[in-house]
Amino acid sequence: MVTYRLDIAYDGSRFYGYAKQPNVRTVQGELEAALSPHTGGVETYVGGRTDKGVHASGQVVSFTCDKLDVAQVLRSLNSLLAPEIAARRLTEAPDGFHARFSATGRAYRYRINNSVVHDPFLAATTWTLGEHLDVDAMNDAVRPLVGEHDFAAFCRKQEGRSTERVVFWTRWRRSTDVVEFSIGASGFCHQLVRSIVGLSVEVGRGRVSAEAVPHIVSSEHRHRSAGAAPPHGLTLVAVVYGAELLPRPSWVPAEHS
Amino acid sequence: MVTYRLDIAYDGSRFYGYAKQPNVRTVQGELEAALSPHTGGVETYVGGRTDKGVHASGQVVSFTCDKLDVAQVLRSLNSLLAPEIAARRLTEAPDGFHARFSATGRAYRYRINNSVVHDPFLAATTWTLGEHLDVDAMNDAVRPLVGEHDFAAFCRKQEGRSTERVVFWTRWRRSTDVVEFSIGASGFCHQLVRSIVGLSVEVGRGRVSAEAVPHIVSSEHRHRSAGAAPPHGLTLVAVVYGAELLPRPSWVPAEHS
Repeated sequence: MVTYRLDIAYDGSRFYGYAKQPNVRTVQGELEAALSPHTGGVETYVGGRTDKGVHASGQVVSFTCDKLDVAQVLRSLNSLLAPEIAARRLTEAPDGFHARFSATGRAYRYRINNSVVHDPFLAATTWTLGEHLDVDAMNDAVRPLVGEHDFAAFCRKQEGRSTERVVFWTRWRRSTDVVEFSIGASGFCHQLVRSIVGLSVEVGRGRVSAEAVPHIVSSEHRHRSAGAAPPHGLTLVAVVYGAELLPRPSWVPAEHS
Repeated sequence: MVTYRLDIAYDGSRFYGYAKQPNVRTVQGELEAALSPHTGGVETYVGGRTDKGVHASGQVVSFTCDKLDVAQVLRSLNSLLAPEIAARRLTEAPDGFHARFSATGRAYRYRINNSVVHDPFLAATTWTLGEHLDVDAMNDAVRPLVGEHDFAAFCRKQEGRSTERVVFWTRWRRSTDVVEFSIGASGFCHQLVRSIVGLSVEVGRGRVSAEAVPHIVSSEHRHRSAGAAPPHGLTLVAVVYGAELLPRPSWVPAEHS
């Protein structure tokens, strides 16, 4: 038996999230169906489970089965899963490799189209928001999140799961109308990125002060100002393993990581 | 009565083209329905009629009606037409302005994802093509098209319509996997851009020599090597009027225009 690592990307718009569920179209459901002629049916594991509407450009999946003809399986997956899911790489992984439990870091991106008028070509992957956003204030808001914290104030509570995580970097930038967020961390509890985005936007609009953020974090209770931003602006960019370096965008200064 | 110029953008993926047709969803049909509460129903004219699946980032529409509250109509259009159509600007135009007949230039872009694996985020707006394309040869192929020509060899014949046009510039470039075409002209007969792209790709693959292109043009009969490329890679970028300058991308050198 061989353990495989499969790197995929998907447009989450028309899926009910990554995780398999009965009677709805999910990324995992489509992927396992496309794999089954080659593997006889396997359980797959995923690096970063994404919610309904969330996208991934650098998702990682693992599974164990008899030795595969890797090139043939990749071609078959791409012909079955196009255009919404792309299978980018299929490689043999060390025994014991697990896409979720072996991961040492994840990076996400969130994009806002900060414009009164939506853009048809960005609509599927950005949150359209007309009010002007103060990006400097948003950076002041997210800077204190770097380091080790209990993120209970930002996460949907999941019984028996810790909400402690190490954040490596957080950064907002503006490129004309597009306001973009990048975050890298050891991992993310449920809705953590979208809650940080929601709170950042409250700060960017001037409704919450950036100085309040450390108090919100330390309260460790889900905070009303940290409502989740819409899912379709969010993309899982990378999951890394072992000594792999989590890819930090070139526009995120090193002093913030 | 006032004549209006409306600037719009649309993702053509889920429309049966721009032009109104019975029983199918078209951009013009949706637009006129959204305008009708404000205008009581008007006929609209368009700068560049686009086929099924073709996109527009800089389309222009004109119509004549009683004076409108421009800001209110724009808000109403955007709330009804989002996310696939965006109404960018609505301005009063000189009497006699006609989006189609007053136009003095149009520019289009075509994008190819030159990769064996498709990209979920580019799938709606690029043609995925795995074979390596020789972009220098493609530029050799399109250079002779600049100037005044009868493009009968590249256009779907339309009774009683001339196929003579003036091409201002043509240019291919590669940015990693994305191979992009830009063309500006006085106007375009039916399927002209997609036929030029189709022929360019035959040259880029090495199946047709760039030197053959002038002969194909001068033959003035629809040429078998000028089959139309798929519509979804094509975007109408701009339509200009009077003394307005047609926007040439910065990467198109002036000597090619």
